[in-house]
Amino acid sequence: METKMAEGTITVPKGFFAGGLYCGLKGSRKNDIGILVCPAGAKAVGMFTTNKIVSPAVIVSRRHCESAKIYAVIANSGNANACTGKQGYKNAIKMCSATAKSLSKTGFLQSECKSKNVLIASTGIIGQQLPMQKISSGIKKLAGKISDTKKAGVNFAKAILTTDTKTKQAVRKINISEKQITIAGTAKGAGMIAPNMATTLSFFTTDAKISKQLLRAAFKDAIGMSLNKLTVDGHQSTNDTAIILASGAAGNKNINKRKSPAYRKFRNALCQLCDELAKQMTLDAEGATRIFKVIIKKSATRTDAGKAARAIADYPLVKCAVNGGDPNWGRIICAVGSAGVKLKPDKLTCKLDNLTVFRNGKPVKFDTKKAERIVSAKEHTITVSLGAGKYSDYCYGCDLSRDYVRINADYHT
Amino acid sequence: METKMAEGTITVPKGFFAGGLYCGLKGSRKNDIGILVCPAGAKAVGMFTTNKIVSPAVIVSRRHCESAKIYAVIANSGNANACTGKQGYKNAIKMCSATAKSLSKTGFLQSECKSKNVLIASTGIIGQQLPMQKISSGIKKLAGKISDTKKAGVNFAKAILTTDTKTKQAVRKINISEKQITIAGTAKGAGMIAPNMATTLSFFTTDAKISKQLLRAAFKDAIGMSLNKLTVDGHQSTNDTAIILASGAAGNKNINKRKSPAYRKFRNALCQLCDELAKQMTLDAEGATRIFKVIIKKSATRTDAGKAARAIADYPLVKCAVNGGDPNWGRIICAVGSAGVKLKPDKLTCKLDNLTVFRNGKPVKFDTKKAERIVSAKEHTITVSLGAGKYSDYCYGCDLSRDYVRINADYHT
Repeated sequence: METKMAEGTITVPKGFFAGGLYCGLKGSRKNDIGILVCPAGAKAVGMFTTNKIVSPAVIVSRRHCESAKIYAVIANSGNANACTGKQGYKNAIKMCSATAKSLSKTGFLQSECKSKNVLIASTGIIGQQLPMQKISSGIKKLAGKISDTKKAGVNFAKAILTTDTKTKQAVRKINISEKQITIAGTAKGAGMIAPNMATTLSFFTTDAKISKQLLRAAFKDAIGMSLNKLTVDGHQSTNDTAIILASGAAGNKNINKRKSPAYRKFRNALCQLCDELAKQMTLDAEGATRIFKVIIKKSATRTDAGKAARAIADYPLVKCAVNGGDPNWGRIICAVGSAGVKLKPDKLTCKLDNLTVFRNGKPVKFDTKKAERIVSAKEHTITVSLGAGKYSDYCYGCDLSRDYVRINADYHT
Repeated sequence: METKMAEGTITVPKGFFAGGLYCGLKGSRKNDIGILVCPAGAKAVGMFTTNKIVSPAVIVSRRHCESAKIYAVIANSGNANACTGKQGYKNAIKMCSATAKSLSKTGFLQSECKSKNVLIASTGIIGQQLPMQKISSGIKKLAGKISDTKKAGVNFAKAILTTDTKTKQAVRKINISEKQITIAGTAKGAGMIAPNMATTLSFFTTDAKISKQLLRAAFKDAIGMSLNKLTVDGHQSTNDTAIILASGAAGNKNINKRKSPAYRKFRNALCQLCDELAKQMTLDAEGATRIFKVIIKKSATRTDAGKAARAIADYPLVKCAVNGGDPNWGRIICAVGSAGVKLKPDKLTCKLDNLTVFRNGKPVKFDTKKAERIVSAKEHTITVSLGAGKYSDYCYGCDLSRDYVRINADYHT
């Protein structure tokens, strides 16, 4: 196998250091601030929410991504710094400059690091100003504790969580021009996850030497095929951010040709990594107990296929049926019928895993017990063929549980 | 006041008879079949789901609505007769002809009634063939029990319920050309309710003498401003049907001019009636404990305003916050930001009832206790001003509770 799975976290690729601690933002006293550092400076690519209301953190990171080198990422949970006006914008800038200053003082960085060489991401409650004194002293303290140990990486991974029950981390190793290249990622999941946006918060590191253009291309594909295919509650937050940093420390021959085997290998590994993180996120979605993949076939257009897949995965009655382990294909058909996509009612076919439950617009007799076993499993696949064309698309969804409601009714402002 | 509220049901307007009983479709042994009769024949207008997968009941009723006179409506709950192929279509026709035949035998009708003079509506489980023997004997039995008492009307109202906890009925009385005119309606609500479709199942009767054209115009407006403004889980079912029958028995001067005071009065009363039913439906939505109205102002287009209102009302995190009595305006802003509508972030303003919580893109200090009281009430209003134009629209939503999930996870196929 070309790609090797490995244990570990974002400090595994060469040239990366991290840390995380509690600075006073979360009532739970769990880690709420994290710093990821590349002392030699990294190429960085970011993808962001398409929500029209965005956190200043998103505005600032979008701009800073244009810098040639990024030395650090500062992230916090517990407060999204969204809908906070000019003060919120000033605070986001201040977080970047404090990080640049504190890290520079440690003598840890190989070149001068300014505010524009730092990226930022925030998540948590909307509409409250950040307690900047707590954050500033947190950053100062954290800058002295940065390390490349696994523990340091895990501390960062913990610092970005909100209602997640566990950290999400994954690592992939590949060989390119006889050098071992490592890619790692960590993400926060939980609610507010929907396709067609960057994702929630996710951070990727790699020691590959690769052109920024190809890093962007591979990242866009990988996010597009994984995190963007995920829907927990059909919504994008004001803060969704995905960032990848490439240190180039692996010493491989620079990957700069799109048609090269090296690029294909890199892209493939990154896609696998993102897919693994997406699954970890879906399984840990708020209150989720089961995940399912919706595949749409024979669609008139690719757009229709994606739309239909999402309509099914977001349909509360389908999500509740999966929660109840109920092979209620009628709700699937109902969802696809109201998705606003082209379909031929008399060609419509639906399968649960490999079990056909509806064929050419008519219900078929099937083994109910088997169907219940399929829908009650940790993962299953819903395949719907629209009979309207030749295009396909898919997405991932999860069930809707009483716990989703409990978590989100009780998570008070 | 021009319009008078009144107690009662669909048998109150002159010229209407009804009945309902249990024929064997529902496990609960509650009424599952109902007949509404206008012995002299009524003008009928129907509005139907826009789902692309529709029950044969919808196909048949759409066509039969073209008939000059409708003598009866046959409705059943417990089985939607949807996704049932050719057999399902035959069964829908058979239900109409059995109703025509049984009623004709009673000598109750004033003219010959054929299958095409009967409308039909079904609701319940999708994908199972109707047990036609039970239904046929149910129709026969029921045809002999039709009456114009209140009890008979309530029996019909009960026969269309699924997971509803109570019947929904409303009556309005107005005077036109010195004659009293009555309009009445009954509906089933519960899950699968969303705007831009007819509604779930609803049936209206009036003794007004009115041209079919104006009956259609008034009905379209009334449904458009009430039931179509309602969203419980953002979806349209395969069976949604709204029917109005006008007997003309009130003896008023025919309403046939759109600009006449008589038409305005009629339309106004029908709108009020539908609005009342819509509220009853929202309050009895699956697991709902609270309803809210979302008003969008200063939108670039009317379409955008409707889209934004619905995005907020359908957003699970907003629905959960309302369930928890939490004035979480951040989620409202987040929902509107991802609704895909034009807005000016620095003009965005949000109010809970009359309490401003967010003004011109910035949070404002407000009385938290007061905000909690507002959101914890049985009904409240969310007003969002987009700052992008001059158009407005609104919709009604309800909270998302643990009970919604329980009901829909446990309602097994």
